[in-house]
Amino acid sequence: MSVTIVGTVALDSIETPKGKFENILGGSATFAGVAAGLFSPVDIVSIVGEDFPSEHISFLQANNINTDGVLTVPGKTFHWSGYYKDDMNQAYTIATDLNVLLEFDPTLPEAAANRPYLFLANLDPVIQKQVILQSKSPKLIVLDTMNYWIETKITELKDVLKLVDVLIINDQELRLLTGQTNIIPGLPEVLKLGPKRVIVKKGEHGSVMYNGSDYFLLPAFPLPNLIDPTGAGDSFAGGFVGYLAKAGTTDEATFQRAMIAGTLISSHTVQGFSLEPLKTLTLDHLNEQFAIFRSYAGLPEGI
Amino acid sequence: MSVTIVGTVALDSIETPKGKFENILGGSATFAGVAAGLFSPVDIVSIVGEDFPSEHISFLQANNINTDGVLTVPGKTFHWSGYYKDDMNQAYTIATDLNVLLEFDPTLPEAAANRPYLFLANLDPVIQKQVILQSKSPKLIVLDTMNYWIETKITELKDVLKLVDVLIINDQELRLLTGQTNIIPGLPEVLKLGPKRVIVKKGEHGSVMYNGSDYFLLPAFPLPNLIDPTGAGDSFAGGFVGYLAKAGTTDEATFQRAMIAGTLISSHTVQGFSLEPLKTLTLDHLNEQFAIFRSYAGLPEGI
Repeated sequence: MSVTIVGTVALDSIETPKGKFENILGGSATFAGVAAGLFSPVDIVSIVGEDFPSEHISFLQANNINTDGVLTVPGKTFHWSGYYKDDMNQAYTIATDLNVLLEFDPTLPEAAANRPYLFLANLDPVIQKQVILQSKSPKLIVLDTMNYWIETKITELKDVLKLVDVLIINDQELRLLTGQTNIIPGLPEVLKLGPKRVIVKKGEHGSVMYNGSDYFLLPAFPLPNLIDPTGAGDSFAGGFVGYLAKAGTTDEATFQRAMIAGTLISSHTVQGFSLEPLKTLTLDHLNEQFAIFRSYAGLPEGI
Repeated sequence: MSVTIVGTVALDSIETPKGKFENILGGSATFAGVAAGLFSPVDIVSIVGEDFPSEHISFLQANNINTDGVLTVPGKTFHWSGYYKDDMNQAYTIATDLNVLLEFDPTLPEAAANRPYLFLANLDPVIQKQVILQSKSPKLIVLDTMNYWIETKITELKDVLKLVDVLIINDQELRLLTGQTNIIPGLPEVLKLGPKRVIVKKGEHGSVMYNGSDYFLLPAFPLPNLIDPTGAGDSFAGGFVGYLAKAGTTDEATFQRAMIAGTLISSHTVQGFSLEPLKTLTLDHLNEQFAIFRSYAGLPEGI
């Protein structure tokens, strides 16, 4: 099956202890789209400015992504600049230039509106809701968000959360959203807001899924060298949704394998700047890594 | 098989967001000993003052522990007082009164010197080495330490590390010992110091074992309510060693199950003050929890 992903397509300027790059390809829909495209056909719905290099569009199209929903308008592309300190656990923002993102008022192309899997990558919750309402009988709706929306648009965010199946957030966002210092007591609080299932990303510490009765606790893939964490969460979520769409089923074991897929892809994302590490990633290599990861985490073949 | 544990037996004064208690039973050998005693006969080697309540000795003896090696001398028992803030991730020390610990110069009783499993709980590395040299043909030597010894007695610590099979430390201690900000690249650095195997405890994020070629990544048991983290690391290590001693084998799967045993026991320790939660813990209950934990972590029966 196929996936529609709505989110940002951006140009990032990033400095980490391992290097510094200006105006490189980024954005929540970009990372999520390329990750999901490893498994399933993807439609991206987003907006860019006239400065957006056409080779980036070609790159997306070469990676299983339909870009008919990526609108080009006069002005500059959304630009995020930031840096990471030594432990790279947190992104520090220097500037967020919304630019053309201020005009983003998406109308889903026919094809995108008909995709059975819908992933609302990090974006204004008002727009996320608009997109859900335009989607025709989606099979599964997955949503990501960030601190900024929890702090500034909590009412709108709670409004859209009533409509989603799976919420994917990180540990800091869970604390902010639920007021719980620890993750575990925060999980049922999330489900009270609407989602049937929540996944919390904990970076180097892995992720946890909660469906209202059972947990699934997954470590991260062990990495000796981290280059740039930007896009790790987006590629985790994109890989998760893409894997689910390929499988076409929504039983527990499929959700668990989808988390492993997201874990493995995001472990590649952080080993280089921008989308570079994903350019050479193949499904064959991912399948080999599934086996290695199972061994490290003690998991049986079935997962 | 049986275990000798050398470490502190203490009286603690502790405040957490969930309560405050003065002069309650604590110490690295106490927590480790009671945890290990769930699986195997234990000898504790330690020192206490004349103020140490005899009911604590009776409690240890009632929990599979031989206390012939616990010396009582004139003076006051080792006393630690500290507190935890809201997230309970870090202990803040108010006072460390070494008291009779200053005179600790252990001579292992015959029985303790002959135990095949030796666990050197957190203690001065000079004393840890003394104990190893008194131990007669140990089958497995496991060692724990803390920031204080890494900062003040690194030469002596490196000296004893050459003699141990397994080092168990937490993530902060690993960073301090290896100078590596991230855990994964720190693991091979530890093995260069002597241990054949290292286990890093990450609190609510679980633990990781590395044997020089393979990792074993284990989540923590999900807990909705944390009362007092004191002794969590000691009971993890004690449960680990006690389980190994009971099994009597040192293959990878046994080491992995031993980590789960430590994980489960420490999840009880943190749900109350002092040793209270361990007083009612039974092997039957632990076995039920093994099954639940396997389900949460996706692990098969064999692990």
